[in-house]
Amino acid sequence: MPIVNIQVTREGSTPERDSVTAEEKAALIKGVSELLRDVLNKPLESTFVVIEEVDTDNWGWGGLPALEYRRKLAAMKETGEG
Amino acid sequence: MPIVNIQVTREGSTPERDSVTAEEKAALIKGVSELLRDVLNKPLESTFVVIEEVDTDNWGWGGLPALEYRRKLAAMKETGEG
Amino acid sequence: MPIVNIQVTREGSTPERDSVTAEEKAALIKGVSELLRDVLNKPLESTFVVIEEVDTDNWGWGGLPALEYRRKLAAMKETGEG
Amino acid sequence: MPIVNIQVTREGSTPERDSVTAEEKAALIKGVSELLRDVLNKPLESTFVVIEEVDTDNWGWGGLPALEYRRKLAAMKETGEG
Amino acid sequence: MPIVNIQVTREGSTPERDSVTAEEKAALIKGVSELLRDVLNKPLESTFVVIEEVDTDNWGWGGLPALEYRRKLAAMKETGEG
Amino acid sequence: MPIVNIQVTREGSTPERDSVTAEEKAALIKGVSELLRDVLNKPLESTFVVIEEVDTDNWGWGGLPALEYRRKLAAMKETGEG
Repeated sequence: MPIVNIQVTREGSTPERDSVTAEEKAALIKGVSELLRDVLNKPLESTFVVIEEVDTDNWGWGGLPALEYRRKLAAMKETGEG
Repeated sequence: MPIVNIQVTREGSTPERDSVTAEEKAALIKGVSELLRDVLNKPLESTFVVIEEVDTDNWGWGGLPALEYRRKLAAMKETGEG
Repeated sequence: MPIVNIQVTREGSTPERDSVTAEEKAALIKGVSELLRDVLNKPLESTFVVIEEVDTDNWGWGGLPALEYRRKLAAMKETGEG
Repeated sequence: MPIVNIQVTREGSTPERDSVTAEEKAALIKGVSELLRDVLNKPLESTFVVIEEVDTDNWGWGGLPALEYRRKLAAMKETGEG
Repeated sequence: MPIVNIQVTREGSTPERDSVTAEEKAALIKGVSELLRDVLNKPLESTFVVIEEVDTDNWGWGGLPALEYRRKLAAMKETGEG
Repeated sequence: MPIVNIQVTREGSTPERDSVTAEEKAALIKGVSELLRDVLNKPLESTFVVIEEVDTDNWGWGGLPALEYRRKLAAMKETGEG
C-alpha cells in the first residue's frame, strides 16, 4: 500500500502550455503505479498517488526562486562558467 | 507536539456539496487533537493539524485518476466482478 | 481516500515507557479512520494512516531541541514567567 | 541535497498585507539554503526549498481552527489566565 | 525540479526477504526519474527521489494496522464476502 | 505557526563524521526558527521543526542512488564534461 507524492512546479511541459495537463497527470499516475507493481509486487489498487503543483515563486533552488535560478544557470552556460 | 497532516480530495461529503465545509474542517481538527490527547497524553495546545485538499485530477488510485477509478469500481460491482 | 500522516516524538506516553506502544498506534489508526468516516463519509477501507516517530533531537520548538524547550517552559512556569 | 518544506498560513506578515510576498519568499529560500551551507556544508545548488501556504481554515492548533485559537489565546491573556 | 516521495512498508517483496533491497530502491529511483523525463520533459538531474520505509505497525488501512487488515481481507476472500 | 521539515542524507558534514551531530541539529533548529521570526514575524514558540535523516540508498538524484550520482558527477568534472 505505497503512497507516492510528486511535487512539480505549476507550469507547462512545453513553452505553449502553462500548466500540467490532465493527460500528463494520468500518465504519471499510471506510470508510477505500474513501477511499484513491477519492482515491489504491489497491486495497482493498493497504491495512492498525490500530485502537488507548486507555484514557481514558492520553489527555491540554488538559494534563489526557481525561475531566477534557471536564468542564472542559462547565463552561466552561455559564458562558459557552467 | 504532534503534527497531523490530512490529505483529502477537494469535493463535498454529500452529492449536493462541492467542497469540504469549514464546519467539517473544524470537526476534523477537534477530533484528531482530542484523539492525540486521549491516546498519547498530548496537550491540545501542542498539536498542529494541517488539512490539504487535493484536486481529484491530482489523486491517483488503482493506476488511474481518482474519479476514473471510482467509476471502474462501481462498474465492477454491478457486474459482480468486485 | 484520505491519507493521514501523524508525526510524534519517539518517546513514551508515561514516564515508565520509552516509546509509543503497538496498542497506542492501533488506537490512533482506528480513531482517525473513524473520524474521517464520521465527518466526511469516507469508508474505513479508503483511508491510509502513516505514523512517523521522530527522535527528540530532531524535533525543534521555540528555536530549541524539543527536550530543551520543555525544560525552559517548566522553569518559566516555576518562576511565574509563563 | 537537502529538501526543505516550509508550511505557513496564507496571510500577511503585517496587518495591511494579506499574503506572503514574493520578496519574503525569496528571503526564506535564501536564508534556509545558506543555513544548510553554513551548518552542514551543503552547496547552495544542491538544496531544494518548497513553501506551502495553507488557508487559515485548514490549519488547526489547540483543537481549533487557527484564527479561533488565536482569539482564545488573546482573550486568555487579557483576563490573566494565559 | 520535481521531488518524489515514495512511502512503502518496511518488508520484502517476496516471502523470503524481509526488506526492500538496494537493487529495488535503485530501480524505483531510475524508473520514476525516467517517467518524469518522459512525461514532463524534466531532465534526470533535476529530480530528487526520497524513499521512506515505514514499519508495518505504523501503517494503517481499513482502521487497522496493516498486517491485521491484510489478514481480514484474506479471511473475507476465503468466505466469499470480499 | 509554521512547520518546517528538513530532509537530509544520513551522513557526516565532514569526512571523519558519519552522521549529523546534535549540535548541528540544534543549529538548524535555531537558524530556521529565527529566519521565520525575522522574515515573517512568527514568534519562535509558534514554529515546529522536524529533521528527517534519510539513508543514502533511499535518496535518488539524476536517476541514480545519491552516492552513485556523486561519483558520476566527480568523474564528469575530472574529464571536463561537467
